Amino acid sequence: MNDSALCINGGRLWQSLMDLACVGATKLGGNCRLALTDEDKAGRDLVCSWLREAGLQIRIDALGNIFARRAGRNPNLAPVMSGSHIDTQPTGGRFDGNYGVLASLEVVRRLNELNIETEAPIDIAIWTNEEGSRFVPVMMGSGVFAGVLTLDQALNAKDKAGFDVAGELQRIGYNGTEPVGGYPVKAYYEAHIEQGPVLDTENLPVATVTGALGLYWYDVIITGQECHAGPSPMPYRRDALKHASSLINDILKLAESRQPDGRVTIGELDMHPNSRNVVPGRVRFTVDLRHSDVAELDRMDAELNALIEQAQNSDSNDMTAVKIELKIVQQMAPTVFDAGRVENVRQAIKDLGLPPRELISGAGHDAVYLSRVIPTAMIFVPCIGGISHNEIEDARPDELEAGANVLINVILADAGRVQ
Amino acid sequence: MNDSALCINGGRLWQSLMDLACVGATKLGGNCRLALTDEDKAGRDLVCSWLREAGLQIRIDALGNIFARRAGRNPNLAPVMSGSHIDTQPTGGRFDGNYGVLASLEVVRRLNELNIETEAPIDIAIWTNEEGSRFVPVMMGSGVFAGVLTLDQALNAKDKAGFDVAGELQRIGYNGTEPVGGYPVKAYYEAHIEQGPVLDTENLPVATVTGALGLYWYDVIITGQECHAGPSPMPYRRDALKHASSLINDILKLAESRQPDGRVTIGELDMHPNSRNVVPGRVRFTVDLRHSDVAELDRMDAELNALIEQAQNSDSNDMTAVKIELKIVQQMAPTVFDAGRVENVRQAIKDLGLPPRELISGAGHDAVYLSRVIPTAMIFVPCIGGISHNEIEDARPDELEAGANVLINVILADAGRVQ
Repeated sequence: MNDSALCINGGRLWQSLMDLACVGATKLGGNCRLALTDEDKAGRDLVCSWLREAGLQIRIDALGNIFARRAGRNPNLAPVMSGSHIDTQPTGGRFDGNYGVLASLEVVRRLNELNIETEAPIDIAIWTNEEGSRFVPVMMGSGVFAGVLTLDQALNAKDKAGFDVAGELQRIGYNGTEPVGGYPVKAYYEAHIEQGPVLDTENLPVATVTGALGLYWYDVIITGQECHAGPSPMPYRRDALKHASSLINDILKLAESRQPDGRVTIGELDMHPNSRNVVPGRVRFTVDLRHSDVAELDRMDAELNALIEQAQNSDSNDMTAVKIELKIVQQMAPTVFDAGRVENVRQAIKDLGLPPRELISGAGHDAVYLSRVIPTAMIFVPCIGGISHNEIEDARPDELEAGANVLINVILADAGRVQ
Repeated sequence: MNDSALCINGGRLWQSLMDLACVGATKLGGNCRLALTDEDKAGRDLVCSWLREAGLQIRIDALGNIFARRAGRNPNLAPVMSGSHIDTQPTGGRFDGNYGVLASLEVVRRLNELNIETEAPIDIAIWTNEEGSRFVPVMMGSGVFAGVLTLDQALNAKDKAGFDVAGELQRIGYNGTEPVGGYPVKAYYEAHIEQGPVLDTENLPVATVTGALGLYWYDVIITGQECHAGPSPMPYRRDALKHASSLINDILKLAESRQPDGRVTIGELDMHPNSRNVVPGRVRFTVDLRHSDVAELDRMDAELNALIEQAQNSDSNDMTAVKIELKIVQQMAPTVFDAGRVENVRQAIKDLGLPPRELISGAGHDAVYLSRVIPTAMIFVPCIGGISHNEIEDARPDELEAGANVLINVILADAGRVQ
C-alpha cells in the first residue's frame, strides 16, 4: 500500500447505511422508498441533515436533484462530483444507490476530520428517481442533467395513480430553484454495488468500471394457428411454440463466442391461448442483446436477423408454416467512461494495495448518462450472491469500506489536495 | 351404391340444425347454450317438441339425460341408442353435439315416413353437460350413465357462481325420475364433426371412428435463479428458459416416429418473473402425450422421463445448473370401440358408395365413456378448416347428410328391419 493513500472510517459508513435503511424499512430487511413518496422525503431529509452537519451547502434544482458542496480553496474551479441515488425499488435493498451517496458523505466527513482542504470544490449529488419504479423513465434526474431528457418530460411524468413529478416534488418540498445542469463539472465518480455475481464469486473487494454495455431490445412474434391438441395430427399443426423453442435455442447461443461482454436474455414469453390441450397459435418473446462494443452489438443484431429469416424460410409447408416478426423496441449504444478517470480509479486501487479487476457495467446507472457531459468513472463493490433489486440484497462492511477508500483517493486526485 | 342402403332427408336435417342454432345464437354466428342455463332449457324444450312430434316417448333421468324412444316390434329387446349433446361452449358452434342429436332425429323422421318398423326399440339420447364449460367434469351425463362418475359427484358439482347441478336441473325442470343407466343397450352410435383437419384437408365426407386416443398429462417445472440481465455474465446464469427451450425441442420430437397416432402438445408455458431484463428463474410448462396404443403411450412416457433425466444431468456446473421436476397430472388409457359396431359403420359407408377412411378420435366424446358399458362406434364428418369450439365452426350440408345416411343404416343393422 502506498503511504500517501487515505482511508475512510468503515464503521461510520456502515452505521450511516444502517441508519438510512431504517427509513422505509421492509419486513424482510430491505427498503421501500419510491421516488417522491413520504419515505423518499424522509430519506432526503435525513441525509440532508447529515450533509449540513458535515458543513456542506445544499442546492436543490428544479427536478429535486440535491447537490451538497464542500468549498474548495479556489471557488472558480469546476467541482468534482460524487454521488448516486437514495430512491429504491418497491422491494429494494439497503445498498443500491444509498452506498454511492453515503460513501461520498463519508469521504467528506473523513476529509473534515483530517483537516484536508482541496483546490476545487466537491459536490455530493443525489439524483431524483434513478429507479424508475414509480415514474418512467429511469435515471430521470441524471438524464435531464445530461440533456438526454427534457425537464418538461420529467416534470410531466405520471405514476399509476395519476400524480405527476412536478406536483409530488412540490408536495414533499424538494422543488428547488436551481436550473438542472448546465454548469461545468470536472469529474463524476459513482461508487455502487455490482448488482451481478462476478466480484462476489471471484472474492474480490473492488473493481474499476470502464463503461457500460450497450443494449438492443426486440420483440419476436410468431403467429401460427391454434387448434385442439386431440384431433390435430402433428403434420397439420402450425405450432408457434415449436418454432419459438427452436429459435430461442439458437438466439441464446449468439453470446457464446462473445464472452465475457456479450449477453443474450429472453426474459419475457407469452403464449396464446396458453391452454393445456390447445396447440399454441401465437408466441411473443423478448430479446435483450448486450455488448460493450457497438460493432459486436451490430454483428449480433445481424445474426439475430439472419436467424429469424432462416427460421421463417425453414418451413415451406403451408400446413405447418408460421409467420415470424422481429420488432426493434429500443437501442442504446455502449458507454465508454473517461480514460483519465478510469485510470484514476485503477491507480487508487493499486495505491491501496487492492487486487486489480476491471468490469463493464451491465446495468444502467446515473453515471452512464452523466458520462455524456462529465468525465466519469465508477467503482464497483460486491453484493452477496450478486443479488440486487431485492429485499435480501446484502454487502460486506469491509468491501464497502474498500470501495469508499478508492473513492476518497480519486476525489482527492481530481480536486487537488492543498499541501 | 348398394340398392338396399337408405338415405335421410339432408335438407330437413340442415333446417333442424339451423332452427336449433337460433336458440342461444351468438353475434358471430355461433351458439352459447351452457349446460342447465335458460338457453339450454330452451334448446332442450325445442328438441323435445320435435321428438314428441316424431312420436317418440321421452324419459328423463335423475341427471337430466333425455331418452326418446321409438318403439320396436319386440319391447323386450335392448334398444339401439344414438345421440350426443346439445350444450355448447361459451363461444361454441352450431354443429358440435347438435349434429349427433339432430341426425338421430332425422333418422327417426325418415323411418317414420318410410313406414319402416324395427325389431328392437331405438333410443335417441341427449347427454347432460358434455362440454364441461359450466360444470366440471366434462362428459358428465354419459360418465354417470357408464359408471365412471357417481351421481352424487355430478349433482353436487358447482359452477363459478356457486350454483349446483341438482339445483339447476330442478330450476329448468329437467330433474327426471328415471335412474341413471343400469339397463342393457344393444349398441350406441354417435355421429359428430371431426373437430380436426383431416377429413376437410383430404376432401372426404365421412370416416369410421375406431376408438379414441389415450392421453397422459404432465407438468414440467424448471427452477433456476432469476437475476438481472445486465450485470450477469452468461457463465453465471441459471437460466430456466434456456433449459426449457432445449427440452421442449426434444419433447416435441417424441411424436415424430409415431405418426399418425402419436401426438405431443406443449400448450401452456409460464415464465417467472417474465420481465424483459431479468433472466428467467422459473419456467413451468405442460406436456400432453396422446396415442391410440397404450404400449406406445407408455414408451412415450418412458422417453419423456429419460429426456428429463438427461436434461437434469446435462449440466453439472453449479453456476448454471437448474432443477427439473416432472409431475403426472392425469392419465387416460386409449379407447378401442366395439369391433362389430365399427364394422357396421365401415359396411354402411361401403354400401353408400362413399370412400373409406378410418380415424381415431383425438378429443373426448360421450361415446368414449359409453363404450365402457355399451358396444359403441362413431361416425365423423368434416368441419371446415378443422375449426371447432369456436363461433365460426362450420360444416357442409352434403357431408352432414352423408354422415346421417351412414347413421340410419347402422341403426337399422342393429335394430333389425321388420320385413
